[in-house]
This record gives sequence, structure tokens and C-alpha cells, in this order.
Amino acid sequence: MPRLILLRHGQSQWNLENRFTGWWDVDVTEKGEAEARAAGALLKDKGMLPTVAFTSVQTRAIKTLHFALEAAGILWIPETKDWRLNERHYGGLTGLNKAETAAKHGDEQVKIWRRSFDTPPPVLERGSEFDLSDDPRYAGIDVPQTESLKDTIARVLPYYESSIVPHLKAGATVLVAAHGNSLRALVKHLSGISDDEITGLEIPTGQPIIYDLDADLAVLDRYYLSER
Amino acid sequence: MPRLILLRHGQSQWNLENRFTGWWDVDVTEKGEAEARAAGALLKDKGMLPTVAFTSVQTRAIKTLHFALEAAGILWIPETKDWRLNERHYGGLTGLNKAETAAKHGDEQVKIWRRSFDTPPPVLERGSEFDLSDDPRYAGIDVPQTESLKDTIARVLPYYESSIVPHLKAGATVLVAAHGNSLRALVKHLSGISDDEITGLEIPTGQPIIYDLDADLAVLDRYYLSER
Repeated sequence: MPRLILLRHGQSQWNLENRFTGWWDVDVTEKGEAEARAAGALLKDKGMLPTVAFTSVQTRAIKTLHFALEAAGILWIPETKDWRLNERHYGGLTGLNKAETAAKHGDEQVKIWRRSFDTPPPVLERGSEFDLSDDPRYAGIDVPQTESLKDTIARVLPYYESSIVPHLKAGATVLVAAHGNSLRALVKHLSGISDDEITGLEIPTGQPIIYDLDADLAVLDRYYLSER
Repeated sequence: MPRLILLRHGQSQWNLENRFTGWWDVDVTEKGEAEARAAGALLKDKGMLPTVAFTSVQTRAIKTLHFALEAAGILWIPETKDWRLNERHYGGLTGLNKAETAAKHGDEQVKIWRRSFDTPPPVLERGSEFDLSDDPRYAGIDVPQTESLKDTIARVLPYYESSIVPHLKAGATVLVAAHGNSLRALVKHLSGISDDEITGLEIPTGQPIIYDLDADLAVLDRYYLSER
């Protein structure tokens, strides 16, 4: 039967520094690497080995995937990297420390930016320090200047339908190594979570979340692999 | 213009132990990792960045690719793993120390197995220690029991034509991170080397070999990147 495994990247340098990251390409820390390897070892221990993998074009997700696959002994499975699995673009908040941002704009405003379903943060100006519109990895792509969670979902789900669903329908066990908000998009879709609730749902780092699906991709069961 | 970059994996544990490896899945050593990262840094320094990558389904080649891409700052480029880029299958020699094999079978016999174009080593018996025919990575593939260099070329070149050439014709810079003998197949084809000569041609580990090609994929220039 089809199975979907969601894995949020291990701790990144900016997770550690409590900075808004979004599309900025930050590496995983040593702790993040260890989390990713532990996730792969768990997949192996539980005999729940993916047959195909997807990730974003961001280093922290790609390396999480590679560490996990290596620890699971399956570095050889096919992998596809796509920008549509990237983290939510945090616009003008990119690079800012979360506490400093709260001090400057007020807790309430930051909470709205972080927790509203459809209010994006201020735009990231073209040409500013964290603008990635000239990065060759995004050649041919209209890089957003900011995104709400709703905007993120609007790019993740069509990609899921076009590129991941065909593998699931063929009975694959698919691993998606990605980010808090791109994975929220999938969890919202699969578990039928409301717009209001999804913004508060935390996806833990390095913890494989399993969706057992039927042939029509209805959810039979959903659980953290560490709890089985 | 199209460009092909060939990269032989960095030192593996069995390179170090001087054992015949073939399809057996051996990791790179610390030195091998350093070689791979240096190759990636060189690609970056010389501004010769691949836009798409291919590798085998063997850990030492995949990890070499990943270390090189990370050092080049382009871990995000598309990568495809395929068994047809695997090392030559060394049959019944797999796992044997090269000196011990020479002591047992004689230098001349080992030289024939290693250096003949079309004489394969003895077969690897099904069910023996190094048999991989039940490895899930080879599901659906008729795993060879031994290969001559000619046999290796006979699987590498059709894959090159079907899967790599279309990227080159589209103007891509293609990185192939693979093995001594799968890369010999490509060098023989591109440089027009005879059957007799190719068996003695050494491909150094961790040294990017560049083929500058014209639109019809005729070779304009061939060089080690470290010499430019």
C-alpha cells in the first residue's frame, strides 16, 4: 500500500540563532546532522524504507535527506529536488532575529506574520541583502518577495499532485524531506486541518511522520514513527 | 556549448586495502571525502559549474558527487543515479586482495583479468558472500555474475546516449561522478581510444576531466581541470 513519510530538516544554524530563514540557504548544525541520521536509522530499524525521495532546493533539506538515506543504507534511491518544496518565503523578515523583530514591531504583529494563514510579511526588496532573485538555482522562476502560508500551500499542493501522487498511486513509499511550512501544506491536505488550526501546528525536526494510505490515497493511519 | 565533466570517486576503503571491489558497496575513506570536496572546490574556483549530474547506485560515487556538489555550492542541481554507471563487475575476484590473488593465480592471469578488453574474470557464484542479486537496489535488473571491460562499455554507452546526450545537446554542463571502468567507457567513446589501449588508461580519483564539446558533441578540447 502507498505510504508517505514526511521529514522536517534537522536543526539549522538559523534555527539555533532564532532568525527567520525562509528561502535563505542555511546549513544544518551538527545537531541537525545527528537528527537526520537518527531519522534514517529509525526508518531502517522499523523496516520502513522509502523507495523514492523528494526534497527542496535548499541545502538544509537536501543534506537532511542525504544523511537520513545514508543512515538507512539506501543512498541509492531516486531523489528529486524542487523549489516548490522550499520553506515559506519570509519576505522582509528574512535574516531577522525573532526576539529583535518582536521588540521592534511588537509581539502581536510578529504573531500575525507567523501565525496568520493568509497575511504575508512585508516584501523583501529586490536587490536587498537576502534577495535571491538572481540565484542561478531559481533561474526561470518568479522568486516570491514574500509568502503567506496560503501562498506556500498554493505551490506545494500542485507539485504534490503532479509529481508525488503518481508514485503513491503506483504503491511507492515516498519520503519528503522538507521544511516546517511546506510540510504543513501536506499535513493540512492529508489530515483535513482547517486554515485556522494549521498555522499553530508544529512539525518537529527530524521526526518521521508516517501516512499510511489506501489505493485512493485516503489516510488509513497517521503517526510519528518514533511512537511505534 | 555542451561540456562533460568526468569525476572518478575518491579513495574507497577497498582501494586502500587493495581489494577488487566492482559492484560491492564500499564507502569512501576520509581521504576520499577530501578528494571529492577538493574536486568540487576546483569546479567552483574555475567557474566550471555543472548544471545537471549523474552517478551510479554505489555509495562511493554518490557520496563523491554530494561532497563535490556541496563544496561547489550547488547541492541543488538535479541528480540521477543509475546502475548502468556502476563500476565493472569483477565477478569471482570481488573482495579478494590483489596481491593475494596474484600469489594464487599468478601475475599473468591477474593481469589478463584486469587488463584484457574482453576476457571477464571467473563468475561470482549466486548466493556467495558478495552476490548482490537479491539487493533491493537491483530489483528488476539482471545482475551480472562477471564483466569484461567490453561488457561494462556495452551498458554504459547506451545509457550515455539515451540519458546524458539529450542534456548535452541542450547545452548543459553535465557532471558524471562514477568509477574507473564506467568512466573508461566514456573516455574511450569520446577520445576514440582503441580496445587495446583503453585497458591501460588510468583515470585518477577526484580529478575532474573536462570535455568541451561542439553542438554535435564532437570533442573540441579535453583536459584535467587542475591543469588549467
